[in-house]
Amino acid sequence: MTLDNVGTPCLVLDCNRMDRNVARLRERMNGLGATLRPHLKTAKSPDAARRVMTTAAGPATVSTLKEAEEFAAAGVTDITYAVGIAPDKLNRVLALRASGVDLAVTLDTVAQARAVAEASRTSGDAIPALIEIDCDGHRSGVLPGDRNRLLAIAEALEAGAKLRGVLTHAGDSYGARGAKALRACAEGERASVVEAAAILREAGHACPVVSVGSTPTAHFAENLDGVTEMRAGVFVFFDLVMAGIGVCQIDDIAISVLATVIGHQPEKGWILVDAGWMAMSRDRGTSKQAVDQGYGLVCDRDGTPLADLIMADANQEHGILALRPGSGATQPDLPIGTRLRILPNHACATGAQHDRYHVLQSGSRNIDAIWPRFGGW
Amino acid sequence: MTLDNVGTPCLVLDCNRMDRNVARLRERMNGLGATLRPHLKTAKSPDAARRVMTTAAGPATVSTLKEAEEFAAAGVTDITYAVGIAPDKLNRVLALRASGVDLAVTLDTVAQARAVAEASRTSGDAIPALIEIDCDGHRSGVLPGDRNRLLAIAEALEAGAKLRGVLTHAGDSYGARGAKALRACAEGERASVVEAAAILREAGHACPVVSVGSTPTAHFAENLDGVTEMRAGVFVFFDLVMAGIGVCQIDDIAISVLATVIGHQPEKGWILVDAGWMAMSRDRGTSKQAVDQGYGLVCDRDGTPLADLIMADANQEHGILALRPGSGATQPDLPIGTRLRILPNHACATGAQHDRYHVLQSGSRNIDAIWPRFGGW
Repeated sequence: MTLDNVGTPCLVLDCNRMDRNVARLRERMNGLGATLRPHLKTAKSPDAARRVMTTAAGPATVSTLKEAEEFAAAGVTDITYAVGIAPDKLNRVLALRASGVDLAVTLDTVAQARAVAEASRTSGDAIPALIEIDCDGHRSGVLPGDRNRLLAIAEALEAGAKLRGVLTHAGDSYGARGAKALRACAEGERASVVEAAAILREAGHACPVVSVGSTPTAHFAENLDGVTEMRAGVFVFFDLVMAGIGVCQIDDIAISVLATVIGHQPEKGWILVDAGWMAMSRDRGTSKQAVDQGYGLVCDRDGTPLADLIMADANQEHGILALRPGSGATQPDLPIGTRLRILPNHACATGAQHDRYHVLQSGSRNIDAIWPRFGGW
Repeated sequence: MTLDNVGTPCLVLDCNRMDRNVARLRERMNGLGATLRPHLKTAKSPDAARRVMTTAAGPATVSTLKEAEEFAAAGVTDITYAVGIAPDKLNRVLALRASGVDLAVTLDTVAQARAVAEASRTSGDAIPALIEIDCDGHRSGVLPGDRNRLLAIAEALEAGAKLRGVLTHAGDSYGARGAKALRACAEGERASVVEAAAILREAGHACPVVSVGSTPTAHFAENLDGVTEMRAGVFVFFDLVMAGIGVCQIDDIAISVLATVIGHQPEKGWILVDAGWMAMSRDRGTSKQAVDQGYGLVCDRDGTPLADLIMADANQEHGILALRPGSGATQPDLPIGTRLRILPNHACATGAQHDRYHVLQSGSRNIDAIWPRFGGW
């Protein structure tokens, strides 16, 4: 199977680029003295996970219990579930733990801590939990200096469960621009969990894990003093949003959607392809960046970007390609049947629209492997 | 299994609402004298399709060959593939036709017509094709009065294949507001294919099928003179975009995402749930409407909307619920573990994030059936 005869649209993965992206962050983390606990929500594939994790058993981060179950079935035994736990999911957590997986949960309320402690007492298995810290007002978490809430959660937890540590995610780093701002996000992320860990330790709670993670901060952190581990996800593939932030170059982006030209509206400058939002996702993450890439940046079949050609609009199974507004480029001649590769705004979102990766080497058209990809919860 | 114990997030389908939506459009089409050829891209489920189609064998419309193959395997034999055909997909078209499915393709260029005619000659099977007409500049298609192009395509087709008719989709109707504008969209859609069919017939080409279709125009067309069939898709479930246009009421919306409360940020007025954009999709189709519903409108577990509470933002597995900006409503008390149902902006996009429907009756919490849902191409 090759890029010339595989059915389109489909998801293509350049495994050399992926390996390079993984090596880059692994080396950085070795230099900064933090364990890399990759977030597998981006890849959702045991084949990809094996190349991303430090060992076949982990460590790893997941965003759903389905991911935990799938990766556990593939031999991963050290997993952090980094989304706040709903009490009625604890039976699945306990089942995974009973099967030998060291699965830790995340929470930021006393109510959750009580539920985790109660499930721990009932089962006789002290579930390890991380307290989520809000480092930048982005989403969930306890404010790092909120001593009362931190200690109340820790105390509620320790009535049966186990406080494993603190965890944060610098979600606002996705909106930061420039090295200086990104370094500040990384330092804010680091400082917040170090502060929270100090409060917990001072009160007598062991807090062995101090966990941070986002792809931008992972690549811009200057020191990780006091941090024990880094969770990052999208670094494995990168995407146009990350290129727009300045975390990677366009030619680091490892996934693309292979599409076929199915029509033209020459008077409008439109080229139609058989990949619409179903194949690209509805993610328009570059719409607020300096360079709006529409639904994706168009490359030729071999992965070379075509000057200023983007997917300007998308219907369910139609992509409308056009030159970027204001471009002086000449639209290339792309007859019916031409195959193209579209780089995505957001690797996690585009990946989720597909059930497999078509894996190839950089510069090759041969598809060497199919890696299944799972979804759901 | 009930709404209280099924794992969240998950997709819930109120089958009474669906049946009511289907009956409404079926009755309309009976009154207007057009065959209903429902677009199954919305449901992607043989169980749902059986309730939407007039007979178990069709007629039906699809947007991918995977849909054609799945529905054919479930007994549907009258299918129109309504996205422009890529020549290298013709082998799959021929295989389906050889298995007994009357599958028609869509095209708008001479290059495609030549490819279809050649595949027809080579296989000895005259593939039926519809010429796509551009009724509103929305996407693809031949301008209805472009006699030369219409006849060139028809002639190229008839060197082996078969001209079945003309087809259009009033995509711009999604941006129309008010009954008057929607009626005008419907009339423009109708007039465009009737004009194109007349040109083809005048030149001696049989043009038995004259096909229109979009959910807004299907519900606002006042007459369909000269039209033989109506394709519409999202009418089966409806969604917030359709409610915003005025095609349905909020309580016609048949699908929702069941979610669980996992946190609060009271000082910001945020409630966090375990359904983010992975469960809702990234579709923000109401963002340009009079009422922006964020990533979805929040209802209680039983489906009653909570005043002005929307999913204001979404991360991959986190939804951030908040009162609509400017609302004077009081935020309800929704403790950790509370279950909620979120109505989607766009049923096709939200459905695509899930692999099954949890089917219930209006007002009931019992899940009576699981209907599998497929994806891919």
